[in-house]
Amino acid sequence: MARVYNFNAGPAVLPQEVLQEAQRELLDFKGSGMSILESSHRGKEYDAVHAEAVANYRQLLGCSDDYAVLFVAGGASMQFAMVPMNLLGAGQSADYINSGAWAGKAIKEAAHIGKVNVAADCGKEIPARVPAPAELKLTPGAAYVHLTSNETISGAQWKTFPKTEAPLVADMSSDILSRPFDINQFGLVYAGAQKNLGPSGIALVAIRKDLAERAAANVPTIMRYKTFIEENSLYNTPPSFSIYIMMLVSRWILKQGLANLHRQNAAKAGLIYALLDAGGFYKGTARTEYRSDMNITFRLPSEALEETFVKEASKQGLKGLKGHRSVGGIRASIYNACPVEGVQALVTFMKEFEKKNG
Amino acid sequence: MARVYNFNAGPAVLPQEVLQEAQRELLDFKGSGMSILESSHRGKEYDAVHAEAVANYRQLLGCSDDYAVLFVAGGASMQFAMVPMNLLGAGQSADYINSGAWAGKAIKEAAHIGKVNVAADCGKEIPARVPAPAELKLTPGAAYVHLTSNETISGAQWKTFPKTEAPLVADMSSDILSRPFDINQFGLVYAGAQKNLGPSGIALVAIRKDLAERAAANVPTIMRYKTFIEENSLYNTPPSFSIYIMMLVSRWILKQGLANLHRQNAAKAGLIYALLDAGGFYKGTARTEYRSDMNITFRLPSEALEETFVKEASKQGLKGLKGHRSVGGIRASIYNACPVEGVQALVTFMKEFEKKNG
Repeated sequence: MARVYNFNAGPAVLPQEVLQEAQRELLDFKGSGMSILESSHRGKEYDAVHAEAVANYRQLLGCSDDYAVLFVAGGASMQFAMVPMNLLGAGQSADYINSGAWAGKAIKEAAHIGKVNVAADCGKEIPARVPAPAELKLTPGAAYVHLTSNETISGAQWKTFPKTEAPLVADMSSDILSRPFDINQFGLVYAGAQKNLGPSGIALVAIRKDLAERAAANVPTIMRYKTFIEENSLYNTPPSFSIYIMMLVSRWILKQGLANLHRQNAAKAGLIYALLDAGGFYKGTARTEYRSDMNITFRLPSEALEETFVKEASKQGLKGLKGHRSVGGIRASIYNACPVEGVQALVTFMKEFEKKNG
Repeated sequence: MARVYNFNAGPAVLPQEVLQEAQRELLDFKGSGMSILESSHRGKEYDAVHAEAVANYRQLLGCSDDYAVLFVAGGASMQFAMVPMNLLGAGQSADYINSGAWAGKAIKEAAHIGKVNVAADCGKEIPARVPAPAELKLTPGAAYVHLTSNETISGAQWKTFPKTEAPLVADMSSDILSRPFDINQFGLVYAGAQKNLGPSGIALVAIRKDLAERAAANVPTIMRYKTFIEENSLYNTPPSFSIYIMMLVSRWILKQGLANLHRQNAAKAGLIYALLDAGGFYKGTARTEYRSDMNITFRLPSEALEETFVKEASKQGLKGLKGHRSVGGIRASIYNACPVEGVQALVTFMKEFEKKNG
């Protein structure tokens, strides 16, 4: 079997040893005679998986007892609705920071549900960036402040997070656990799993427990964070296989070490950014100081060349490099599980491609 | 590897050939060099999976162009909320038929969202049953009528469905595609996948498209059936691995044939029910005419004997026979993928157990 280098934005590359372990035990989980896909979510085999997943993510996120770690079916799009449904009381407003397409989606969804103030807006700027602290027009008494830690489409990333009076809420879908951060600075963080954590169709949520008390009585049981906290994400049958994969990934992250992964991610990104800065052929589309370590976005001199680039890269086993359909260009998503060898292969290819076409 | 016989209520037994195929291609899907877990939901590999899943379930359910087949993250508990959020307009009411624990949960959730009339209630009767058509007190002008086709906990199952003026909505989580039925009699059917269709954390929904137009403007985008219809369940990143497994299961169902599965399911259930009817040791807990072909529920002379029964069965590789914690007793869930050999082994065990303890 020839594994390719996978630069997909999500679903994305998973650690090979995670896939191998899942493959080995897919028909017989730990000698139980059945697949984890077939195991009862109330049985001892799955219990152990669930408990370890919760414990590992608590540890990785540095959660004190004030925080709960939850597994919620659906991705970030479901959280776009759940956050305001739970945290935005009648008559209150929430501050949202618009830094791009994903922040924009979160804003649109919240505005369905309650009053939203856009506290800063650089969502359509090119080169892409996130706002500087001084640009934020925060509302006194806001229910919360929402930001998007990494814009998967534009490739802009918050390097430090603003201090806010209201609880800070972050969509960390595309950079969670790619670097250390202080959970105590946040009221709630959420992340669709399909980039750094596991399969698509599930989100990891870490929430300061007191915030879950805010939800109005008419919020559906299955959409209340309180339900998930009280039942340890087992109110209903959870996406158990997805949580199992996330548990295996959490083990892998613990083994690598978060600080190591951060260093490695910065080094990987640096290899490509160095090339973007070297000459005029490749042109980065995010501002230098806000460049994402996860999603490297750039353009070539023409769309025709971009198309050729994607095709020829694919032939050499470098997959998923096409930019998001809404913006075009090239995007290399190099999450935790993307090996440095993959990035080196990409850089070699880029140099050769430039030589031929530059 | 010794596979056991798995009588779990859900997550539940899957066809062994489905698991084997998933295992074979887990690291390299169709020569793509990556796992289907890592494939882009906008790429050609996943596209083919998604399209086949939609087509197969449309065929199996007999959907005309008036109906859409959707894959929605979350299980039936999410549908308990989505159905009234989408179908129950302001000032309207919906009729719900209470036939047991799951119908009761659907009612509780709908009552959070709108006005609910309980059109019949035998939810707490023992032996368990579903209402007869004459018992239904349907409301003229109701937005819809909701029933639960099979009560997984009590083991009562609708054998024919009532004709209703309002659109009929059914939670078919535990018996969908275990027998043929006429989709045209329904406005909407939904099913958590983790019994007859695949992994937990996803629901199959078939909806008459015109009903999706009813949702009020403040229903979150991700909870609107219309969003799923317009985007072919690809508005956001779907639970792609779960849909892949569901696709493999749909192929397996097509290969078996729905009519064959129905005959086989009735025959399997008949083997156990014959034993319940034979003497006084085992006592069925559902009324004869409403006995489920999927979840066979019964009691032994004492709770102590039930505990011994579950333990000894487990030692012989017959797993998951403990009744739901809310009712106790024994439950054998014998979904499509439960082989007749498993039921025969269970019957043999039951006879021996009775001989020793009767």
